[in-house]
Amino acid sequence: MALRVGVIGTGAIGEEHIRRIQFKLVGAEIVAVTDVNLERAAEVIKDIPGARVEKTGQAVIEAADVDAIVVTSWGATHEEYVLGSIAAGKPVFCEKPLATTAAGAKRIVDAEMAAGKKLVQVGFMRRYDSGYRMLKEVVDNGSIGDSLIVHCAHRNPEVGESYMTDMAIHDTVIHEIDVIRWLLNDDYVSAQVLMPKKTKNAFSHLSDPQIVLLETAEGRRVDVEVFVNAKYGYDIQCEVVGEEGIARLPEPQSVVMRKDAKYGTNILMDWKKRFIDSYDVELQEWIDSTAKGEVDGPTSWDGYRAAVTADACVKAQTSGAIEAIPAEPKPDFYK
Amino acid sequence: MALRVGVIGTGAIGEEHIRRIQFKLVGAEIVAVTDVNLERAAEVIKDIPGARVEKTGQAVIEAADVDAIVVTSWGATHEEYVLGSIAAGKPVFCEKPLATTAAGAKRIVDAEMAAGKKLVQVGFMRRYDSGYRMLKEVVDNGSIGDSLIVHCAHRNPEVGESYMTDMAIHDTVIHEIDVIRWLLNDDYVSAQVLMPKKTKNAFSHLSDPQIVLLETAEGRRVDVEVFVNAKYGYDIQCEVVGEEGIARLPEPQSVVMRKDAKYGTNILMDWKKRFIDSYDVELQEWIDSTAKGEVDGPTSWDGYRAAVTADACVKAQTSGAIEAIPAEPKPDFYK
Amino acid sequence: MALRVGVIGTGAIGEEHIRRIQFKLVGAEIVAVTDVNLERAAEVIKDIPGARVEKTGQAVIEAADVDAIVVTSWGATHEEYVLGSIAAGKPVFCEKPLATTAAGAKRIVDAEMAAGKKLVQVGFMRRYDSGYRMLKEVVDNGSIGDSLIVHCAHRNPEVGESYMTDMAIHDTVIHEIDVIRWLLNDDYVSAQVLMPKKTKNAFSHLSDPQIVLLETAEGRRVDVEVFVNAKYGYDIQCEVVGEEGIARLPEPQSVVMRKDAKYGTNILMDWKKRFIDSYDVELQEWIDSTAKGEVDGPTSWDGYRAAVTADACVKAQTSGAIEAIPAEPKPDFYK
Amino acid sequence: MALRVGVIGTGAIGEEHIRRIQFKLVGAEIVAVTDVNLERAAEVIKDIPGARVEKTGQAVIEAADVDAIVVTSWGATHEEYVLGSIAAGKPVFCEKPLATTAAGAKRIVDAEMAAGKKLVQVGFMRRYDSGYRMLKEVVDNGSIGDSLIVHCAHRNPEVGESYMTDMAIHDTVIHEIDVIRWLLNDDYVSAQVLMPKKTKNAFSHLSDPQIVLLETAEGRRVDVEVFVNAKYGYDIQCEVVGEEGIARLPEPQSVVMRKDAKYGTNILMDWKKRFIDSYDVELQEWIDSTAKGEVDGPTSWDGYRAAVTADACVKAQTSGAIEAIPAEPKPDFYK
Repeated sequence: MALRVGVIGTGAIGEEHIRRIQFKLVGAEIVAVTDVNLERAAEVIKDIPGARVEKTGQAVIEAADVDAIVVTSWGATHEEYVLGSIAAGKPVFCEKPLATTAAGAKRIVDAEMAAGKKLVQVGFMRRYDSGYRMLKEVVDNGSIGDSLIVHCAHRNPEVGESYMTDMAIHDTVIHEIDVIRWLLNDDYVSAQVLMPKKTKNAFSHLSDPQIVLLETAEGRRVDVEVFVNAKYGYDIQCEVVGEEGIARLPEPQSVVMRKDAKYGTNILMDWKKRFIDSYDVELQEWIDSTAKGEVDGPTSWDGYRAAVTADACVKAQTSGAIEAIPAEPKPDFYK
Repeated sequence: MALRVGVIGTGAIGEEHIRRIQFKLVGAEIVAVTDVNLERAAEVIKDIPGARVEKTGQAVIEAADVDAIVVTSWGATHEEYVLGSIAAGKPVFCEKPLATTAAGAKRIVDAEMAAGKKLVQVGFMRRYDSGYRMLKEVVDNGSIGDSLIVHCAHRNPEVGESYMTDMAIHDTVIHEIDVIRWLLNDDYVSAQVLMPKKTKNAFSHLSDPQIVLLETAEGRRVDVEVFVNAKYGYDIQCEVVGEEGIARLPEPQSVVMRKDAKYGTNILMDWKKRFIDSYDVELQEWIDSTAKGEVDGPTSWDGYRAAVTADACVKAQTSGAIEAIPAEPKPDFYK
Repeated sequence: MALRVGVIGTGAIGEEHIRRIQFKLVGAEIVAVTDVNLERAAEVIKDIPGARVEKTGQAVIEAADVDAIVVTSWGATHEEYVLGSIAAGKPVFCEKPLATTAAGAKRIVDAEMAAGKKLVQVGFMRRYDSGYRMLKEVVDNGSIGDSLIVHCAHRNPEVGESYMTDMAIHDTVIHEIDVIRWLLNDDYVSAQVLMPKKTKNAFSHLSDPQIVLLETAEGRRVDVEVFVNAKYGYDIQCEVVGEEGIARLPEPQSVVMRKDAKYGTNILMDWKKRFIDSYDVELQEWIDSTAKGEVDGPTSWDGYRAAVTADACVKAQTSGAIEAIPAEPKPDFYK
Repeated sequence: MALRVGVIGTGAIGEEHIRRIQFKLVGAEIVAVTDVNLERAAEVIKDIPGARVEKTGQAVIEAADVDAIVVTSWGATHEEYVLGSIAAGKPVFCEKPLATTAAGAKRIVDAEMAAGKKLVQVGFMRRYDSGYRMLKEVVDNGSIGDSLIVHCAHRNPEVGESYMTDMAIHDTVIHEIDVIRWLLNDDYVSAQVLMPKKTKNAFSHLSDPQIVLLETAEGRRVDVEVFVNAKYGYDIQCEVVGEEGIARLPEPQSVVMRKDAKYGTNILMDWKKRFIDSYDVELQEWIDSTAKGEVDGPTSWDGYRAAVTADACVKAQTSGAIEAIPAEPKPDFYK
């Protein structure tokens, strides 16, 4: 009766999802896993008696006792396993990115539409954060009137030397790209990127901070300050300016202190803690909707449009110009 | 393998716990229930194929396939069912109050100790609230030094005509009595109650607001403003004054708005929403610890000491004096 | 045309008031000063050409060109100089305390009433703080309905060894005693003092923190946590609980920072900065009302009632009992 | 000994400054005034015995007993009176705008430099706001490291039908243009203006809201959301993103309320109250520095650069392009 899940990729996030599904959430169990490192795969499931290791991702997908797939492998392999799941007619939850290129994401969209049934969900977990959900409720219920502008900030304490300028888009702003599309129920038509004075705390090859400016089909404006060596903390800000008022994403819950001549709260330093609860909600809802034969979360269309938008942002990083994002009407299939 | 749970009492809270255990939490299933209204009991479990209705609470307790009991019946029956569970050697989760009198709670303590094994957990759910847990972490980790004073407020928008002055203690402040004992890891030695100017918004028979003053064995002072016709919202405040700083219970997460010449957040009007998440955590942890043969949450000793303290507070309401609370060393059994 | 002011006492606060009156405020000038240390007095006025040193306080009071007196001498001499000013029929602004005993303050009240004209203003500067004035406006305009309870805290980072337990009343809580009387337009009828667990950061002879409980003629309840070795900052809190809502004293204006994993503001460490602006407002209003022949601020009656209340609090510190404060109707003279 | 001030223009702001200088501030007195409406001028000074009406602005400037000029006439006349004051060698405080065109402002700069002495101060009062001063102190003292980005919002509840799109720059953002130049000690090199989806609450001829993007010589980025029909209040926001942390302009001081299911503070609806205290500080400091023969506040160079920047913003409103702002090194004269 429980949804029988196969997992491809048992790295950090894969292992977390496996434990979440098996021990914390209801309605699903892990039956098969695989990884490029089969020993690692075996290690991860050693306390799950009903689970086995398969040699390949394709074997997981095709296993008769696997009802649904979770793809948490290396990003470059996502497209293959998602297409494989579609071919097998099985629901698949794919961690971001859906594919490493917009073209790859488009191939998934096309395959899914050709298959005639929505099967793919992309791992944009912010839509499951309690704060963003509260914010969306306020936006949707008309409390602040129509939304006109969204101001965002995405700040990390620091990044390693391997973090390149375009990763500010593909790894960081990608979250805002998706969650603001969802929040506004709108899509993007142009992108521009400003490069402010650079912090001394970034590696020499990295432009940091950056300001990403997005325009939507409805004319709304979104600005995202992305600052990945902000030192002071991991901090996600989002403020929606509406015709009748302003609504701001809640800060994470925290004890208010008066200590050492300071009044206020702690700020998280570790990004992993910021949306930790969202993963539980995300996968529980995926299990529940999958059990009903539905896809309720971010679709492959969402993954595709995020990729197209990210590509325009990266182009804008180097051109300094306002880059158009080709408009594409959302297929009825995804409505 | 799952913990097989029997539930005595299928009223509102009983039904909620049944659905929570069966559909939302992991590691347990409902196998038997009963209620004074057997039709109601049958209705509540109609979508749980593995569950049946038993004619009496005692039958639930004694059923061979029931591993653990949840008591959510009318308060006056709690003592009987908890004693019955102890007699049967089965773990029991009892919604508050543990008993309607301190003497009754003491009989449970005595029976449990005589049985030689901790079996009883009392439903003080605030210990499972994420905010209180953050606050306790700050208190315990020494961030504010030793705790000296705790300022609390417990405010409801309004209460019905049946709410009597002593219910401010037994139904309302009882939560602060338990949670502050736990927060401070201390116990009470005296109680005093002040009756401020009465709000015009209370029924004539009710003293509202009140201020409850508690002193602990360590000399700490706790003041609780209880104001059950505060009109503006359901609002729980708790501030711990320590030697090195002050720590305050977080406000519930809420979107920050700028609208209609006001800047701030909404306040909950409905108390049921304030600690809704705590019940999930509470029962999940009860299931987990019960599965390990342990009692991890509020014990019958905690329930007993809360009852003794509440009795002193009620006495102080009418005497206007400082009422001593007899000190009793915590038995090793409960350490 | 300017009000010609004589100042008795040129210590720290005296010097500040002299410079304030002469250089910062309008409508007054310093013409004569004195001090127990005449050299100090001369030093203080050396850049005020129109001012001279008189040998005694009485000489300042009697000088023909002195229109009004400011008493900023040692507390034990206040009564004498205020009585002298009354005898001379001249308006007098007296820094707190009005007198060192309630009996002394009463002698001033009696003398002033016998003289038939209000002449005395006491230096309770909090009534002139912008935050307290905003709070009083909210209380007075009915926004929160009738006031039922006031929760206060008065916290200092630390005090020296010479600070004794009764000084928590006479030097510290005295400010709350006056400002809450004014805020509520009510007077006190009883006092009680709780002694919580003592902080390790206080000298051994000092009870710290303390909680002062006051009851008013209208039945309102005021609690004041006084904690003079609170380490983290100088912090004044005041929250009024009304029938329809709660109003809280604004925090001092401060830049909101996100830095070093902390979100919030700085807290003042130096009490002198907290109410610095209030002194300007206080003395400007005193100059303006004195020029009109009126007393607009805290009267000698207010100073007297503060002294009576403080005496009851000190008695309660040692008795541990609820000490009655003799009710005295406010004379029409002071209405 | 007092600075003898002549005022040209006795409209609303002129009258306020006259009363401020005469009755509230120290060190100055009004001796002569004029206005296009001489009756109005006479009415305004009727309670100032030492003041007279002159027939023309030039007469005020030339009057032998006038030490310094305040220009509060119609904007189109500012240039003439400021140039006249320079010609007369007298200090002049000119309300904004310094001139109606950048060219006019440049003529003033040139005349002042030719005259060889700084005489002109422009009425940018935000530099005197306690909040901005606190913010500048944090920026200047290195608390947040070097400043990289400034996010601003300037929101009004509503504007009348006569408010045109370019007034968002000349009347509204002009304040941010000056105060951020001062805050950063930097100057602008380019401007861009985004036109988000328009609020339904604006008149049809007005683009509202707008987002103004400024780049500085040091590469810093400033974004200003200007939204003059924001309905909910008059709201000025400013957040400086630095290398080591973020600092935010304090909100105006306000009582914190819990009422009607809302927690927070009131927001001002009336812009006049927001910076009311700044005018006092501004003119007092102008009086004090003028008495010392200095110009301490915003200079004609500041007024000129603000005008040049505003012109580029207006051009960008229609071009949609990034408009360069010609760099001009600050003359040594103004350093």
